[in-house]
This record gives sequence, structure tokens and C-alpha cells, in this order.
Amino acid sequence: MFHVLYSSVTRNSSFGEVVMIRVLFGLIALILILSAGAMGTVSEETQACLDCHSLYTPGIVEDWLSSRHSNVTVDQALELPRIERRVTNENVSEVLRSVSIGCYECHTLNTDKHQDSFEHFDYKINLIVSPNDCATCHSEEVSQYTGSKKAHALGNLQDNELFSLMVSTHTSVKNVSETEIGQLEASENAKNESCYACHGTEVIVRGLRTVETDLGDIEVLDLDNWPNQGVGRVNPDGSLGACTSCHPRHSFSIEIARKPYTCSQCHLEPDVPAWQVYKESKHGNIFSSIGSKWEWNSVPWVLGKDFKAPSCAVCHNSLVVNSEGDEILPRTHDFGARIWQRIFGLIYSHPQTISGQTSIIRNSDSQPLPTTFDGEIAAEYLISEQEQQSRQDDMKSLCRNCHGRTWADEYFVKFDSTVTEADMMVASATRLIMAAWELNLEDKSNPFDETIEFRWVRQWLFYANSLRYASAMSGPDYAAFKNGWWSLTENLQLMKDFIEQKQALRR
Amino acid sequence: MFHVLYSSVTRNSSFGEVVMIRVLFGLIALILILSAGAMGTVSEETQACLDCHSLYTPGIVEDWLSSRHSNVTVDQALELPRIERRVTNENVSEVLRSVSIGCYECHTLNTDKHQDSFEHFDYKINLIVSPNDCATCHSEEVSQYTGSKKAHALGNLQDNELFSLMVSTHTSVKNVSETEIGQLEASENAKNESCYACHGTEVIVRGLRTVETDLGDIEVLDLDNWPNQGVGRVNPDGSLGACTSCHPRHSFSIEIARKPYTCSQCHLEPDVPAWQVYKESKHGNIFSSIGSKWEWNSVPWVLGKDFKAPSCAVCHNSLVVNSEGDEILPRTHDFGARIWQRIFGLIYSHPQTISGQTSIIRNSDSQPLPTTFDGEIAAEYLISEQEQQSRQDDMKSLCRNCHGRTWADEYFVKFDSTVTEADMMVASATRLIMAAWELNLEDKSNPFDETIEFRWVRQWLFYANSLRYASAMSGPDYAAFKNGWWSLTENLQLMKDFIEQKQALRR
Amino acid sequence: MFHVLYSSVTRNSSFGEVVMIRVLFGLIALILILSAGAMGTVSEETQACLDCHSLYTPGIVEDWLSSRHSNVTVDQALELPRIERRVTNENVSEVLRSVSIGCYECHTLNTDKHQDSFEHFDYKINLIVSPNDCATCHSEEVSQYTGSKKAHALGNLQDNELFSLMVSTHTSVKNVSETEIGQLEASENAKNESCYACHGTEVIVRGLRTVETDLGDIEVLDLDNWPNQGVGRVNPDGSLGACTSCHPRHSFSIEIARKPYTCSQCHLEPDVPAWQVYKESKHGNIFSSIGSKWEWNSVPWVLGKDFKAPSCAVCHNSLVVNSEGDEILPRTHDFGARIWQRIFGLIYSHPQTISGQTSIIRNSDSQPLPTTFDGEIAAEYLISEQEQQSRQDDMKSLCRNCHGRTWADEYFVKFDSTVTEADMMVASATRLIMAAWELNLEDKSNPFDETIEFRWVRQWLFYANSLRYASAMSGPDYAAFKNGWWSLTENLQLMKDFIEQKQALRR
Repeated sequence: MFHVLYSSVTRNSSFGEVVMIRVLFGLIALILILSAGAMGTVSEETQACLDCHSLYTPGIVEDWLSSRHSNVTVDQALELPRIERRVTNENVSEVLRSVSIGCYECHTLNTDKHQDSFEHFDYKINLIVSPNDCATCHSEEVSQYTGSKKAHALGNLQDNELFSLMVSTHTSVKNVSETEIGQLEASENAKNESCYACHGTEVIVRGLRTVETDLGDIEVLDLDNWPNQGVGRVNPDGSLGACTSCHPRHSFSIEIARKPYTCSQCHLEPDVPAWQVYKESKHGNIFSSIGSKWEWNSVPWVLGKDFKAPSCAVCHNSLVVNSEGDEILPRTHDFGARIWQRIFGLIYSHPQTISGQTSIIRNSDSQPLPTTFDGEIAAEYLISEQEQQSRQDDMKSLCRNCHGRTWADEYFVKFDSTVTEADMMVASATRLIMAAWELNLEDKSNPFDETIEFRWVRQWLFYANSLRYASAMSGPDYAAFKNGWWSLTENLQLMKDFIEQKQALRR
Repeated sequence: MFHVLYSSVTRNSSFGEVVMIRVLFGLIALILILSAGAMGTVSEETQACLDCHSLYTPGIVEDWLSSRHSNVTVDQALELPRIERRVTNENVSEVLRSVSIGCYECHTLNTDKHQDSFEHFDYKINLIVSPNDCATCHSEEVSQYTGSKKAHALGNLQDNELFSLMVSTHTSVKNVSETEIGQLEASENAKNESCYACHGTEVIVRGLRTVETDLGDIEVLDLDNWPNQGVGRVNPDGSLGACTSCHPRHSFSIEIARKPYTCSQCHLEPDVPAWQVYKESKHGNIFSSIGSKWEWNSVPWVLGKDFKAPSCAVCHNSLVVNSEGDEILPRTHDFGARIWQRIFGLIYSHPQTISGQTSIIRNSDSQPLPTTFDGEIAAEYLISEQEQQSRQDDMKSLCRNCHGRTWADEYFVKFDSTVTEADMMVASATRLIMAAWELNLEDKSNPFDETIEFRWVRQWLFYANSLRYASAMSGPDYAAFKNGWWSLTENLQLMKDFIEQKQALRR
Repeated sequence: MFHVLYSSVTRNSSFGEVVMIRVLFGLIALILILSAGAMGTVSEETQACLDCHSLYTPGIVEDWLSSRHSNVTVDQALELPRIERRVTNENVSEVLRSVSIGCYECHTLNTDKHQDSFEHFDYKINLIVSPNDCATCHSEEVSQYTGSKKAHALGNLQDNELFSLMVSTHTSVKNVSETEIGQLEASENAKNESCYACHGTEVIVRGLRTVETDLGDIEVLDLDNWPNQGVGRVNPDGSLGACTSCHPRHSFSIEIARKPYTCSQCHLEPDVPAWQVYKESKHGNIFSSIGSKWEWNSVPWVLGKDFKAPSCAVCHNSLVVNSEGDEILPRTHDFGARIWQRIFGLIYSHPQTISGQTSIIRNSDSQPLPTTFDGEIAAEYLISEQEQQSRQDDMKSLCRNCHGRTWADEYFVKFDSTVTEADMMVASATRLIMAAWELNLEDKSNPFDETIEFRWVRQWLFYANSLRYASAMSGPDYAAFKNGWWSLTENLQLMKDFIEQKQALRR
């Protein structure tokens, strides 16, 4: 911190000022150094890692040095009152309790489960620290996460025959002969770079390979589908997810995880415009304007004091308390757990799924979807009306810390009405595409590869999602001209025109 | 501030450092507490509000505690030299002058005019604090605002038969039968979530309803078209606007109002890409890079010292002075008052309107538009050439504080030329759509609902606006590939193609 | 800095706190003032400039006062160890070495070469300070820049007959008669506001003109194609470029130049979505979340300490060292010098050009393009495979400071694969447009003005670029739904449909 403070003070100073400031800082530094206990106690093994890696991967080492892991031991972490704790397992084994959480402590856990375990300068190291390893100390968080849709994000695409058809249709190279378009098989790479970059890849250990280094030849792992930090990554120990998706990489920062920029890596337009809608909302406006002055690292997170307007984390997962320290909402790492309805990704909105594994769903038309094309929900896979109401009530109780009764109540009435209308606009597009199929204007076998089918997907995946998000977080442009009502209406006209033209040309 | 400073210092510190810092901060805190006069004088009534609401709506209370309203009395505010004042009414009544401006002081003003006045624990409270109430202290600001286009933003849509047709066409649910598209009546909700979210709603008091609370059943207001913070909100006391549009909600922050993020809630692409163009301009580049170090709260605002590059507020409404304290431009809350030309929202650019109420305009073709489809302006409703020149000269005088003569002069020559060319590109699209109507390829009765009509609207509402804004604030992408010249040109081709196809199919 | 620190401390303080803080700050200020050496030594001539301009252009003066130029003399700058220096010419003439680098010092250099030199209150002043002038002290930077593609950005458009046809096609006003579209000649203004705003204009001195001022009539320069700050500006002294493109305007800030917001003025979607992809990448996520705490002004730039994740400047041009102070990559102002492949702007990706002047290239079909329509590269104008490998190895050596071997290696394997697939998707579109030309469905003479031609340009200029960038910097949305695989696939369908319709209508 000293470095940062010194820099911020001297940045705009004249040479004369700098001299004086140096003297002042020198004195303070002396006091601090004398009283400082340095960075916890680094284990011998981690020290060995640091000795080399501070030369070879200084970025990793510096990042770790700035982390809580390097500065606080488990014993210290558990001394805090329960509501201030970040460590949820009270029974961490003795050997890990009084040392800094360093390289060795994390990269050698549960080695027997890790196919990515390998010999590295006399240590047996796992390349990937998985959620299962993090659960050593953060057991509740991992337990919540593991059952969530995020953890199953890869399987929810790959094991759903409709979605996997959509993925392979859109990520495959097309070749052209005369004026006909053919389709090659989609490469793993193309999927990894697009859909699976967010959803996660299955990391596969191919074996070892030898590389030349300044220290001579060494063996490193040879991996498929790597690198990847998707939320549903299938790790070489079989666990699901990557904590680094949101807590990147060796700072394990809660600040970064809480900043909406993190969520915005994947939740962005045109298909999931959460970030863009938030940014143009009043909440986002306040965040952008004064958020840099807020306290992003405190646990628990005090509404009104630490932050003045909600960000993604406030509503969807953080432990939030009021000025008196009373809990408003508990922490959850199942990011769907507070939400009653699902407003994106699927054709129609629907109640949240009971299981995070959505590929098991079958609707009454035997499709792997939570609703039929007519909008009938697959109720047995979805949470009950009672549970929906309970979740909405909890969310409303958060809103009411800053908004009056009528404001909060009417907000959700608006939202319900808009979601219903968005679904109606999708239903109209669905009727048009079904007409096109029935009239044999397009081929139904792959519903994702012809012109009018692209328009149909736009209607639910881009435009209806935009309208629903615009309502959920009050970003009116996405309800209007930016992929909202305007696009929903224009797109229907284009679908109708397309059908008329095809019919006319056929005659 | 202590909390923030302490947090920022300790954030990256080791445990040892923190101990030492705590001691230092403790000493300083002691001194501050002994000398601190706390937060002005809270009235008894406001204290009663705070007693409950610090428990039930702590977010509101914490926000207010951070505000100038809680920390400065009117008497203190009026002690400042005139140019530093934020209070413009020098004759505020005695009863409000020596207390903090708290809950009670604002929510009980002009009760007789407020249809949203209701009994709340023995107090008669207005739910909405309206511009008319804020005028108690901020009379000049409200007076300027009330005559502006922003204040009339709802009526300017609703009372203009063309614009209201456009709104209802695009926000209505469409149903499909066979391959025909029908249109339901647009719901109030759909309009409120899209167009009226920015333009404002008419808030209507339905009556009271009873809700259960921890303190027993209480009565709260039942409102239509609520919540809303649009700039042209029609309040239950008949006044127009919502000061919270830009000064959200109980911090009444001048910093937030001045940050371009606030304007960007509504002034954004595709129809009004002011924010996006600013962001990619050199001015926006400098703001994004170093704006966090500027002084956003000072009145007056010192060019070159408080800020290094203009943001929206600098050019369009703030009181700006030079390093000597001389006024460069006075404050205005009529955000169109410094602008000579209107470059968005309408088919062609045109001189600013004289009145903020634009629905009264009739052009020579009896349309409620400031220009005819041929581009002839409705001169009697628009400011004179002399007034236009005078406004441009004033704006240029601001530019010249950082730019040389030739730079500033040529800048406006460029702008005029680009606006003219943008209008020519709209005129070409207008000629194509009129041809389509004359050829009976599309139905003229509603000019907003068929495919080529969507293209025509795109030309003036998205693409010509983008080009004009790109020039006004030097964001070249919006003049080129992002909705600029590229789109204007491609769109004309698509309109022409559409006409040719329809004609060919008819033959 | 005092002003800023004082403001930040008092901003949220109560009146009582402010009194105490004022006393503390007063004492510190006294000490600083006594010890301060003020701002270097301002020359007499510059002082004369400041005397007037602090009144007439205070924004410029304040900006300069905050700059290193006003605070450090060349002699002081050269006292630093070589790796910390910003001045690369060790032989700056004596007359410039011991004074502040002020108005006079820069605006009077090399007057004989400057067609924009003019008499101004008894001084001979150059309006534009050109790269050639900056080279007086920053010789290496200017030398690197002058050979780069950026320096030649205007000629690379204007002197390439295909690109200049594209520019004039898209920036020309179109007129409509009946349903036919005609094209006027593109105005200089339209080009200056769009393409040349980034690429640069040729600034031409028309002569002098007289303007009225408070000090009486004065003569100022009359210029064409001004103002402009494009990277390839042709200056009135014949030099290429504008250092102010990135180091705006009188602060000459290295912080602003290093912030990605600067690059994002031109490198943005749809054609060059570098900024958008970066922002949604993990690197960009970290920058957005905690970048405001980094040290943006230090030279050299210490990886891991000064910054925690790369921004544009880190990878593409800055002098970066590790925690030990060892150089990782040297500074370059040829922004293409570290890149082995060119992934945007041209139909297919290809090895970097040898010369920054790309208009000299001729492929085997005699087109001024680095590849033929079939993808054959014009090898003699492009860097060798060996040079490509060497550059990729250097870049990888940077990555490896934060990433393991396999991560870094596989990253580039992914990138190569994606670029290949993007090129294949362009090749398919190229085959379709060539079919349309052969079938006489569209006219080949201008490949940029008809509907299917717009679609073809979209394929390579918008969608393939997006996919390549998405891979280069890991922003998966641009590989998927945002102008990536989705758009590449849909666009091919639309091209095919267009051909089918045109053929059907002809029959």
C-alpha cells in the first residue's frame, strides 16, 4: 500500500515537493517496518516455489503477494466473528492453519484425484487448483456452486441435443461450391473460443512434454481444451467450475469478483445484455459515477455505507447487512438461487429450474426444453409458485432498504407484465417459423441454419432477452430502440416478408 | 470520509502495518471528533423520520447523510459569494433556514397541491418531492428547467400525433394468425418501460392501500405509472420533471449529475448516440483516462483546474469559470439553451425550437414537425438566425479556452457541412419511401409499420443522427462504420432493392 | 497535487472536520512551499506566451502546468539512468537543456520547414508542433514511428486505388431520382470526419486571415483539413503523424497514452473491435476493476507491481521490466513491430508488412493487396516466417511472466487455428460474390456499392475481424453472437438467398 500511496501523492508534485514528501514518507516507513510482522508465515515448500517463480513468473508472485492468501493464515481468518469470515470450513486440517496460503498449499491438494498432477523439481504438483481443492477452506461456497447452473454450464450445452446442434451449426466452417453452402464439422477449437469460453471446456490431460528452459529441459503437462476459465469447466479431478472465472488468478480478489466488469465478461449483448442494461440503469449510473469511492473488500458488505447502489453481486450473491450489522441476505455462490424466473437463454421465460443440470429436462413434446414451442412449462423440473413467490419476496426485501413499498411492489408488477409481453412477441415469431416449415419454405430438420431460422433465434435470444433484461434492471434503451420493442416488431415484419417472397417466387 | 480514507490506506496493508495505522488514525479521529460540529441541526420532525427510517430504509438515510443537504443549512449556503452558491432563492422562509434539509423539510412542502399527500404516522407527507418543491431553494434552476424540452418530454411525444403513432406502433404486442401480423393496443406498461422511461410518465394517484409491516398495518399510496424518473414526468402536483433524473436520490449529488454516465442513461445509441460518440472522442478519452482525479463537486467549476476536458455538463449546462474566476458561461438547467441547432429526434436537423413544448408546431404541410418531408422549416416556431449565431458564438468562446482560433472556427465549419450532408442522405431515403408509397408497394397510412418504413426511420433516427453526433463531438467511428456513412449508404441500397423486388414480384 | 489531496480528504467531511483538516494542511503546505523549487526555469520567451495565454487559453496553460514538460528540464531528464529516461536524444542543444519545455521551446523549432510558421506578436510561431519537432528530444520514438503503418495511415488509404474507391463510395452523398440512386463526388469534409479522422488529413496552409480580438485585429493561419489529430496526419513541415493522437495536448501525458481508452478512439467495432474485445477479456476485466490503483506514469513499467494485467500499451509498445528491473521487452513506437500477423483491415489475415507504406504492395493479380482473392500472399512485401516466429516468441516471453508454459503455448495454437478458420469463412463469402459477378447479378466494376458487396465487406471487415480479435485477446462474445461465428454464418445465408432471389426474379 505504501508504494501506491507514495505514488499517488507524488504523481503531480514538483521536484521540491517530492523531496519533502520523501522525508515524511521515509519516517513513516521506518515506523511501519519496525512494527510490521511481514506476510504471515510462508511454508518452506512455498518459499522454494517463490525462489524460482519470483524470477520466472513474477506476475504470479506479485499478484499473490497482494492477496489475502499471502497475508492471513486460516487461524487468523477463523478468529473473526462468523459474519466477517471468508473461510467457511471450521475444520481445516492443522497443517494448513498457521501458514500463508501459498503455492504449495493449494497446488498439492487431493493429488490422487488430479490427472493433472506431475513431478516438478521434486514436488508433486497439480497444474489446476480446482473448486474441490478450494473447498478445503471455502466449503460452503463450493457446495453452493457445485449444484448451480454455472457449474453445469458445459453439460447444459453439450448434453442438450438442441443446444449442441445450435453450437455446432454456428461454429462450423462453411465451404461454398458454386452458390451452395456446405458445412464442415465444427472444430473443438471453434467451440472453445466462442460458446465454451464462457461455459467451460473439459480439460483433458494428454500426458507430458519436454520444454527447454534456462534451467535445462523440464517436463510440463500437455493438455487439451486449455487454457480455459469458463464457469462450467470440467477439471482433471472431475470437479466442475473455475473459481478464477470471477476471482482471478493469484490475488483471489473479492473486489474484482464483486465488480460488475467481471460478470460482464459473459453476460453481455446481444444474447445476455445484463451488463449493458445495468450500465444504463440508474443503479449503474451511480456505480459508474461514484463506485470508485466505495468499499469493495469488506465482509460483510454494508448497504448504504460500503456501497450506495447495487451491483450484480449485491442482488445475486453477496452477504449484505444493514447499518446495524443485521443480515439482509445471506451469501450464496449459486447465482440463480435468489432468482425466481429465468429470462434468458431459452425461447420463453420460465420458473427457475430445480436442478442446475438442465439437460435432464424434457417438456411434454419430449424436447430438452423447459417449455414447449407453445409455451407450456415442464413443471416437474421447475420451482413451485410458492418458491418463486418466496424468492421474489426476499429480493423485494433488499430493494426496500432504499425504496418505498409502492416503488418496490410496482417494480415487480412492471417486470411481470413486460416478461409476459416479451413471451407473446416470441410466440408470434414461433408461429411464423412453424408456418414456414409447414409451407415447406424452409427445412425443419435443423432449426438453426436457414435465414428465417436466424430471424426466429434473434427474436428470442437477442430481442426478447433484451426487453426482459431492460425491465429487470431498468435500462430503457434495451426496451426501445436497442434490440427491444423496435427490433421485436421489425423482425416480425422481416419474417413475414421473407415468407411472402418465398411463396411468390415459388408461384 | 474517515471510513473511506482508513479503508483505502489499510486495504493493501499487512497485519503489522494495520496495527500501526490504527493507532495513528485513532489519534486523528479523536481530534476530529472533539472539534466536529456534527451535521448541522436536524429538525425534531426529521429526527422522528430518521429514527424509524434508519432501520427500515437505511439506504435512503445513509445516502442523505452523505449529502450536502444534511450538512449545510440554507443560511450557511447563502453566506457564500454569489458565484459559489447552489441556492438561488435568497428569500427562503425563516423556518427552513437554520436546519438541515431533511426528510420533513422536503416531503411536506406545498401539501395542498400534492395529490400524493397522505397521513404517515401523524405526519402529512408527500411521496414525491417535485421540481416545484425543490424551487423553494433552487428557484432559478427549476424556472429554467420548466420551460425546456426536457420538462415537456412526455407531452412532446404524447400530444404529437405522429410520434404517438410511432410509440404505439412499436410498443404494441403483435399476434400472428397464419402468416398475417395483427396488432394489439399498446399497454401503458410497455410504453412506460421503453419510451416513457426516459421521457417521463404521468404519475396518477389511485388512492391508498394497506400493507403489513413490522409496525402493524399501515396505509401507503397506490399509484399508476410509478416508479418513474423520466425527465418529463408529470407529477401529482402538476409540475413537470424529476430532479432525481440527474441528481439521484437522497444524495442530490452534483458530482453524479455532472458525470456523463448520467446523461448516458438516455442519450445513447442507436437513436441518440451522444454518450458513445463522446466516449470515443478525444475529450471522452481524456475524461476516461484521468477524470477520476478531477474535482467534480466545486461551484463554480474552474476550467483547466477542476477539469481538463469537457464533459456533457461543461458544454451544456454548468457554470464554468477560468483560472481567474471570471465567468465563461453561466449555469442553465434548460439543456437546449446553449444549442442553436437540433440534430436528433427529427427527420432533418433544424434550428432549435423557441418553446420547449414542441407538440404545438405545425409545418407548412400541417404536420406536427419542424420541417416538411422536403426539408422546409417551420420558421415561426424556431429560433432566428441571429439567435443561432449568438449561441454558436457563445459555445465557441468556451472552446477557445483550450483551442486556437482556427481550430475552433474550422470545427464549426466542419459540423455545418456534415449536418447538411446528413440531411441530404435523409432526403434521398425520403424520396425512396415516397416512391414506394406512390407505387402502392407499401401502405402510407401508418408510416412506421412496414419493412421499408423501418428502413426509412433507421436512416434519420439512427444513421443520420449518428453522423451528426459524430461530427458534433468528433467520434469518427459513428461517422464511418458504426451507423454512419456506411449504414446511410447500405440502407439506401436495401431500400432500392426492396422496391425493385416488390415491383418484380408484382409483375 | 495538494489541491487534489485536500479535496479528496475534505469531500465527505463535516464542517467541523474541515476546520481541523485545514489547519493540518496549512502546516504541511507551508513546509512544502518553503522547500519547493517551483516549476523548473521558464524561459523569457515562454513567460511572454504565458502572460497572455493564461488569460486567453487558460485550458492550454493549466494543462501544460500539470505536465512533465513544465516541471523537468532536459538536463534533469538526462540525469536519470538510461532505463528510466523519456528523453532519447542525448545531444539536445544547450539552449534547450536548462529551461522548462514551454510554448516557445516547441512552437519555434525548425521554422524553415514549417509552412505553418507565422508572425505572432513579434515571434515567429509554428502552429503545429510536428513529430519532427518532438524528435529534438524524443528522437528514437519518432524514428520508430515514422516508418510505421500508423505514420503512413493516410497514404495507405489514399494511394491504394481499391481502398480510396471504398472511401469515396461510402462517404459520398447519394441523390435519388425516381427509384434510382446516383452518387455525388465525396467531399473532403466527409472523408475528414470519418476515415481520415483516424488515418489523418493532409494539413494545407491556405495563408493568413485577420480576426478581431480583445487585443485588436490579429492575423492567424487559414488552414485546410484542420483540425485533425489522426495518426498519419501529413503536417505542414512534411512530417507524418501527430504525437497528440495519443499524448493529448499540452500535458503530453504518458498515463493517457498508456490507458486503453486512447487506443479505443480508433480501434473499435465493428471494423476493429480491439477495445471491445479487450474490455470483455479477463485482462480487461482486471484493468476495469482495479486499474485505477495502478501506477501509470512510471518508466520503466514494472510488471506485477505497477500493473497487474496487460493493457494495449504493455503488449504493443511499452518498455516493460520485471520486479528485478530486468527488461522484458524494449519500448517501441512502431506499434506493429511486435506483431507477426495482420488480422484486420484486409480481406485475409497475412504476415506483417515489411514497410509501413502498404500502398506499394502488389499481389500476383496486380491488386494493391497483400493477398489475392484466393488468399495467396504477396510474399516479397511481407516479413519472413522466421521473423514471424521470432516476434511470436518475444510476445510469448511476455505472457510467460504471468502464465505457465502450456497456457502460453496453447494460447497461440488456438489463435492460429481461429485465424485460419476466419479466413476460410471469408473465402466462402468471396466465392459467393465472385459467383454473383460471374452470373451478372451485380456489377463488378465497383466492388463496394451494391447490396451483396456490402455483405461481402461485412464478412471480412466486420465479422472475420471480430472473430480474429476475439481470439487474439480472448473476448468470446465477439467470437460468438456479437459479430462472430453467428454473423459469419448468417451472412453467408443472406448472400446465398440474395443470389437465389435475383436469379429467380430474372427467370
